[in-house]
Amino acid sequence: MTRLLYGLCGEDRARRFSPHVWKVEMALAHKGLDCRVVPLAFTEIPEVEGGATKTVPYLVDGDHAVVDSFAIAQHLDAAYPDRATLFGGDGGRATARFVEAFSQTVLHPAIIRIILLDVHDRLAPRDRTYFRTSREAAFGKTLEEVAAAGPAERSAFADKLMPLRSLLKKQPFIGGDTPLFADYIVFGALQWARIISPQPLLDPPDAVADWFERCLDLHDGLGRGMPAAGTAEGA
Amino acid sequence: MTRLLYGLCGEDRARRFSPHVWKVEMALAHKGLDCRVVPLAFTEIPEVEGGATKTVPYLVDGDHAVVDSFAIAQHLDAAYPDRATLFGGDGGRATARFVEAFSQTVLHPAIIRIILLDVHDRLAPRDRTYFRTSREAAFGKTLEEVAAAGPAERSAFADKLMPLRSLLKKQPFIGGDTPLFADYIVFGALQWARIISPQPLLDPPDAVADWFERCLDLHDGLGRGMPAAGTAEGA
Repeated sequence: MTRLLYGLCGEDRARRFSPHVWKVEMALAHKGLDCRVVPLAFTEIPEVEGGATKTVPYLVDGDHAVVDSFAIAQHLDAAYPDRATLFGGDGGRATARFVEAFSQTVLHPAIIRIILLDVHDRLAPRDRTYFRTSREAAFGKTLEEVAAAGPAERSAFADKLMPLRSLLKKQPFIGGDTPLFADYIVFGALQWARIISPQPLLDPPDAVADWFERCLDLHDGLGRGMPAAGTAEGA
Repeated sequence: MTRLLYGLCGEDRARRFSPHVWKVEMALAHKGLDCRVVPLAFTEIPEVEGGATKTVPYLVDGDHAVVDSFAIAQHLDAAYPDRATLFGGDGGRATARFVEAFSQTVLHPAIIRIILLDVHDRLAPRDRTYFRTSREAAFGKTLEEVAAAGPAERSAFADKLMPLRSLLKKQPFIGGDTPLFADYIVFGALQWARIISPQPLLDPPDAVADWFERCLDLHDGLGRGMPAAGTAEGA
């Protein structure tokens, strides 16, 4: 059986940048499960698996097809209970929803305003009209107008990570001594920016930057294996 | 054995307002453990138990004396493992630290700026000089200057609860279908304001306000038993 994970890519098909797909790639590695990742352009998503999904990540795991990163993590813990847990129990699963909500309502809206034009510029040509039209409608501004406010968003960004910075005084990961899916949730958001935008989000020294480096090293350096957008090899 | 919990009060000794002590009162009720709460003025804290603690909550539970709300919750789950769990497993305990960090770095700084003068005005006379001196040093402003910016803080406050509001679309409590200590962490912050300040923090209809009402009803209405500062009986 080949396990398939549909993800997202830009013009460079090797540059998988979806934050939500990264959560799942890390979760699969956490559980020691192999997977073939199939990167798609935005506008290719409705064309695969007979139109089964409008969004990625979309995991096809034997007889199970699961959409949505959190649902996939729940599926993996349920289907492979003898492998390393992603939640550390029922309380961990429930409380990870708070981390997800924090990431979705605080981090993602800030990050997308910083990297919006960088994302656009790296998309496959067939995606660019779709992306510009849908995002300009959502923001009520042109991509360029959003990007013009990016530096101010960037200046305010470090403060938004205060909860994680504060937690890291107590323990090395959100999961405690070792990472859980809650860590991968926030990791995905920062990895998204790292891969698609040459603008660094954090200024070391910073406990969050250190935690992100630790996450990049996890699972034989899975996250670090994708070059940063700002590096020579990733340019 | 009488279990003792040292807490905090103002001039009205029945008005226990510490957010951190409320976390512990809820945690004890969650586990079905009786407790005698001993409210103290700020400046009385160093005088009890032979100077054993500088802060409250301080729990004396048989041979165990524990300071700090999170440490007390951990003690209760370890000492009474057969009663309802406060964390729902190791992952829940670790991830509750994220909720604590969010509450301490996002909610508390905003709330204290809104209610600072209300707290002062309800303190025991012996506490007022200590409170004014220590808080004015911390803020670098007079209490009245902080209070003057309170309405702007109040206007911005609802947005700070977006992560909880978003989570509540998925489940009724941070703990899932039922509350965990993570819920009591945020509850404590809002209960602090409810008890000491007549200024409402939230404008219904709001999913967070609904969640707070559910929390006030928990454990036979323990939290609701303390009248709000804005009500006639609490004025």
